[in-house]
Amino acid sequence: MNNTENKGTPIGEYGKFGLIEHLAKKVIIGNNSTVSGIGDDSAVIESGENLTLVSTDLFLEGIHFNLIYTPLKHLGYKAVVRGISDIYAMNGTPGQILIALGISSKFSVEQVEELYEGINLACEKYKVDLVGGDTTSSLTGLTIGITALGIVEKESLIKRNGAGANDLICVTGDFGAAFMGLQLLERERKLFEKEKVAQPDLSGFEYAIGRQLKPEFPVATLIELRKAGIRPTSMIDVSDGLASDLIHICKLSGTCCRIFSNKIPIDYETSKLSEEFNIDPVIPAMNGGEDYELLFTIPLDSFEKIKQIESVKVIGHMTSPGTGNFLVGDGGSEVEISAQGWIKAK
Amino acid sequence: MNNTENKGTPIGEYGKFGLIEHLAKKVIIGNNSTVSGIGDDSAVIESGENLTLVSTDLFLEGIHFNLIYTPLKHLGYKAVVRGISDIYAMNGTPGQILIALGISSKFSVEQVEELYEGINLACEKYKVDLVGGDTTSSLTGLTIGITALGIVEKESLIKRNGAGANDLICVTGDFGAAFMGLQLLERERKLFEKEKVAQPDLSGFEYAIGRQLKPEFPVATLIELRKAGIRPTSMIDVSDGLASDLIHICKLSGTCCRIFSNKIPIDYETSKLSEEFNIDPVIPAMNGGEDYELLFTIPLDSFEKIKQIESVKVIGHMTSPGTGNFLVGDGGSEVEISAQGWIKAK
Repeated sequence: MNNTENKGTPIGEYGKFGLIEHLAKKVIIGNNSTVSGIGDDSAVIESGENLTLVSTDLFLEGIHFNLIYTPLKHLGYKAVVRGISDIYAMNGTPGQILIALGISSKFSVEQVEELYEGINLACEKYKVDLVGGDTTSSLTGLTIGITALGIVEKESLIKRNGAGANDLICVTGDFGAAFMGLQLLERERKLFEKEKVAQPDLSGFEYAIGRQLKPEFPVATLIELRKAGIRPTSMIDVSDGLASDLIHICKLSGTCCRIFSNKIPIDYETSKLSEEFNIDPVIPAMNGGEDYELLFTIPLDSFEKIKQIESVKVIGHMTSPGTGNFLVGDGGSEVEISAQGWIKAK
Repeated sequence: MNNTENKGTPIGEYGKFGLIEHLAKKVIIGNNSTVSGIGDDSAVIESGENLTLVSTDLFLEGIHFNLIYTPLKHLGYKAVVRGISDIYAMNGTPGQILIALGISSKFSVEQVEELYEGINLACEKYKVDLVGGDTTSSLTGLTIGITALGIVEKESLIKRNGAGANDLICVTGDFGAAFMGLQLLERERKLFEKEKVAQPDLSGFEYAIGRQLKPEFPVATLIELRKAGIRPTSMIDVSDGLASDLIHICKLSGTCCRIFSNKIPIDYETSKLSEEFNIDPVIPAMNGGEDYELLFTIPLDSFEKIKQIESVKVIGHMTSPGTGNFLVGDGGSEVEISAQGWIKAK
């Protein structure tokens, strides 16, 4: 009458992605309507002329957010952005979301309203409808489950597995800011708790903090790509970290990669914060996560076209299988890229 | 820098359904593809010739299950049944599920595998594909988010709001067993913790315990109804409790109801356990929840047809608006039915 004792293999030995892969092996797909399942940003389901995309994510208090410095309105907004970014990453258009909430008794109705204000705001901005969910009590703070649905025309679907050797690796926006914003918020929280400094000093880092608390998704770039006639061969949203998400694409596409550290877009605030925290800014840029940017590959012959799109940067290229995945430094030094992404409690 | 203090309205004042209703007021539906949103078992989305149904639920350790007496395999199975029952309740056919897991470090890989064994078993039984999800670490035990998708032909959709006055109120299966099974498991757990009795005494109550730990959904009845040409005017799956779920239908349909306590199907084990626990078996049958049975209404003129279907019992009828919702006792006494359903920590 007791199965809570842990006698077996620690989950850490597999890591997040290893565990999913391990479990996915035993999954059998039986329905004709299932186009593809585990392993991409969203699941793909046949529905008439189009494909339905669906993805689900969990947001757990203490793991994904700390309410000490996260306004509930921002949290609601961010949860929606996280959900719909999985739909955009398949080149789809999100249409609906569902929110499942676990709420402990420490929350008031007004606080839940604040959370929903953010949810509704993001829904309005990204033109998605909140169509359902679940609400339950919780013993342990706030749990948010977000499910996003969207559609994509069959010929427009972009998966993670389509990159070829020599394809260019492209990104939108910049990297590491959300992570450094979090480090700053954490530092100020600790000061607040220790010395009861009432007013945290966050000035000069509004961008990094904004990236952490209220991210946006680069929808405009997707439209620009379509207009320019550029069709990515693979695509993913960067939520786990540039390194992890790039490795996903390589693994599923059967390619390797070279990216160049001086090509990775890093904001001034990220650099400045990295200096304060005494780390190389390439580290948060590669492994920080929560960037909600697009990472995609395009055929080499689209290079002239992609140069015209200001919001996109080419950071490297795919290589043949077996050549390893490397980050090339300024002096030509090569560091092997490894997937992380098991989100640790901060 | 602190928004975790609770100064506002306690959530308990609204209750689960009140809160959802309150929050739903501010939700704006903007997309043409959204057929209907919050307020039914699933959301309904236009997709070609058919409708896509989607629902999401949270399962939280300590609220929805206690791992002391819940085998992980059963838990996985139950989570799937809970998810797909929302699709069946709209007269749809479930096709896919997504599982989002929050796992604390106390769990081993083998335990997660056990959970997935149950998930896969239920998927096989109910012919649904596991197509995706999310896995994250958790500070606080096991969190399961389950999203279910299905389809239904437009003309076959059955919602909660279609009941009319004089319609017959029908149910499948029996009620209260899952709740009484839980009471028994809880009693034995307490004995185990207090007196270290190693072997819980559960003999004679296998049915009630099975209903709690590994419920099934009455899919066969849905097929029988179709074959018999009976078209329910409204339908819901009974997960929150017969009383709550009946009130939902009444509220959304604009009807009131009379049900008869001696017509409510109650299993022998439920009665026997109720006796042991010294409560009227009608109480768990009405308010226990987790029955995963169907509650539906049919036009009065389908009475002769429904009598032929053994798995369905008529428990009462709808009445005109304003006449109140009552449970009629053996002697003709009337007790007003009220919706509960804010699941309390056991």
